[in-house]
Amino acid sequence: MKSKAAVAFGPNEPLKIVEIDVDEPKKNEVRVKIINTSVCHTDAFTLSGEDPEGVFPAVLGHEGGGIVESVGEGVTSFKPGDHVIPLYTAECGKCKFCLSGKTNLCSSVRETQGKGVMTDGTTRFSYNGEPIYHYMGTSTFSEYTVVNDVNLVKVDEEAPLDKVCLLGCGVTTGMGAVKNTAKVEEGAVVAVFGLGAIGLAAIQGLVKAKAERIIAIDINPDKWPLAEKMGATEFVNPKEHDRPIQEVIVEMTDGGVDYSFECIGNVDVMRSALECCHKGWGESIILGVAGAGKEISTRPFQLVTGRVWRGSAFGGVKGKTELPGMVLNYMDGEIDLDSFITHNLKFEEINDAFDLLHKGESIRTVLSY
Amino acid sequence: MKSKAAVAFGPNEPLKIVEIDVDEPKKNEVRVKIINTSVCHTDAFTLSGEDPEGVFPAVLGHEGGGIVESVGEGVTSFKPGDHVIPLYTAECGKCKFCLSGKTNLCSSVRETQGKGVMTDGTTRFSYNGEPIYHYMGTSTFSEYTVVNDVNLVKVDEEAPLDKVCLLGCGVTTGMGAVKNTAKVEEGAVVAVFGLGAIGLAAIQGLVKAKAERIIAIDINPDKWPLAEKMGATEFVNPKEHDRPIQEVIVEMTDGGVDYSFECIGNVDVMRSALECCHKGWGESIILGVAGAGKEISTRPFQLVTGRVWRGSAFGGVKGKTELPGMVLNYMDGEIDLDSFITHNLKFEEINDAFDLLHKGESIRTVLSY
Repeated sequence: MKSKAAVAFGPNEPLKIVEIDVDEPKKNEVRVKIINTSVCHTDAFTLSGEDPEGVFPAVLGHEGGGIVESVGEGVTSFKPGDHVIPLYTAECGKCKFCLSGKTNLCSSVRETQGKGVMTDGTTRFSYNGEPIYHYMGTSTFSEYTVVNDVNLVKVDEEAPLDKVCLLGCGVTTGMGAVKNTAKVEEGAVVAVFGLGAIGLAAIQGLVKAKAERIIAIDINPDKWPLAEKMGATEFVNPKEHDRPIQEVIVEMTDGGVDYSFECIGNVDVMRSALECCHKGWGESIILGVAGAGKEISTRPFQLVTGRVWRGSAFGGVKGKTELPGMVLNYMDGEIDLDSFITHNLKFEEINDAFDLLHKGESIRTVLSY
Repeated sequence: MKSKAAVAFGPNEPLKIVEIDVDEPKKNEVRVKIINTSVCHTDAFTLSGEDPEGVFPAVLGHEGGGIVESVGEGVTSFKPGDHVIPLYTAECGKCKFCLSGKTNLCSSVRETQGKGVMTDGTTRFSYNGEPIYHYMGTSTFSEYTVVNDVNLVKVDEEAPLDKVCLLGCGVTTGMGAVKNTAKVEEGAVVAVFGLGAIGLAAIQGLVKAKAERIIAIDINPDKWPLAEKMGATEFVNPKEHDRPIQEVIVEMTDGGVDYSFECIGNVDVMRSALECCHKGWGESIILGVAGAGKEISTRPFQLVTGRVWRGSAFGGVKGKTELPGMVLNYMDGEIDLDSFITHNLKFEEINDAFDLLHKGESIRTVLSY
């Protein structure tokens, strides 16, 4: 079938809105009509050419919501009309990872997903007869997309897709990391580096966890009002200090924070986030995605004296198991998604959404097909 | 009083056996007659001049056992004749750290201990009227030493000090890290890098924790027989492989180990130890002490995909609380200390003990005054 899509033909080029061909879903695949998608820094990261897994031409996009159009052979858990959210972190329920009870990572489709193809090694997208690659197992920048059934979760039909699409990445990552990865306890003192969607979601998660102090850190003071609205208790702008920001935070907190979250993808900030942790027990969690070849460093003494360095993907959240509940939490008013949506645009304005993100003017722009 | 001591007069010089003056213990201090001491890599590290906290001249030594000779004002928990082990990781029971329930680090005497002085800023050692610095709060390379009462634990009088002195550092560090820091569970697959006393003790701890596979890694194959005796199940010599050792271990273990322990102090090995961990849940624990200014590095993706990087000092063991029980465990045959002791020498032969350590010929040399 024909589908409107925003194709990334090459690194650092604006996306081009074209009509592509989308094949029927094959075995264990589902074709989804995307209703809404938002744009995340990871899309921008891959588009920049910095992502070592990035391949072109590709249909990017991984934060979306839609409705099942058709299903391939062997698909039993979805039927046309189901409301769904694509999952870049699959959940097959059967692999070593899914069965471990220790991680949300799933190995079932990891290898092909990372290469931009379906499990048979081919793509379902083409343009003028030439294949177009998939992205993160989701490719929500096409009105019709094909995903593996392990990369999809059914959600309540009453849920507004133009809101709950945000649970496809950033909000879930931030909130999940607080609950699943750090397991923050009541009364904790916490630092959040970077006040984009992930950082703000972490703040929202910290409020739910009853953290005592939530120190929000960003070089852009325009980010503070929303962070404060979400529940941050203090703001620190590293540009206002002429010494390493970890020293400032250690001093503010009488020895350091119990937890810190790096929500940017900057390896120098990752170091600061670790080193502002309290000796003996402070834990730092990396959520941001760094550029290709970038490395984190610190003196091992930081760890020997009790700090812990960890990270997580998709907030440690198992999509099929946990996302339906998070959607209901949104509908019950327990999770605020609306505040993340600073802009609503038409799908055709997708490059403007990237611009708003780069300029730091948006948190999330939701696009409608 | 006069005391025989092996003084480190300067970096990289052999210790000199001289008669020093040891003052009376002041408030909250205890003077101990050291009966036995062993030599640990950390002593050699400080003697090399690489230790940023190292000051000279100093009485080194931190793995010892002795008998209380006299106590200063205010000391109520020790009396002359008590058998004791000096603790470089103090336990005051009152500071923010001791009360946290999250760490064995204690801040009570940390600042002065790190500077080689007692809490009043002076030393109890002198030679020809010139002060000699303390070391790690213990200074067991003097027949008589003065320590803070928080740096000392009373142990069973029946326990042979020439054996249980090993609980003052290496053995406790390795065994404790398995139990307290990693909390290794039954059936775990584990890699131990470095088969000195700490690595061997980790292996012993892993056997107690019922780990399924204990992969011992060292570039010196002479270390393997003792590692095997302690309970290691496989030996890997990085020199026999022409690719990064983490790749070899990931392949051997179908994806990586559940836990790894770095027991050397080499930042490149620390990286290997992290990267040989299983995606999703593998945890690497740094126990070795790296040289001044050395840094660990890795790609943040290693952590984002679920590996955890931690470390601990003295195996996370609270000395006053836990060491008396470990001494009893030795006496009951539950902990093997004897196998660690490859050499017994007279105190005057202390430089030979350092030589044996540097040559990799000894695990522990126990010295008798």
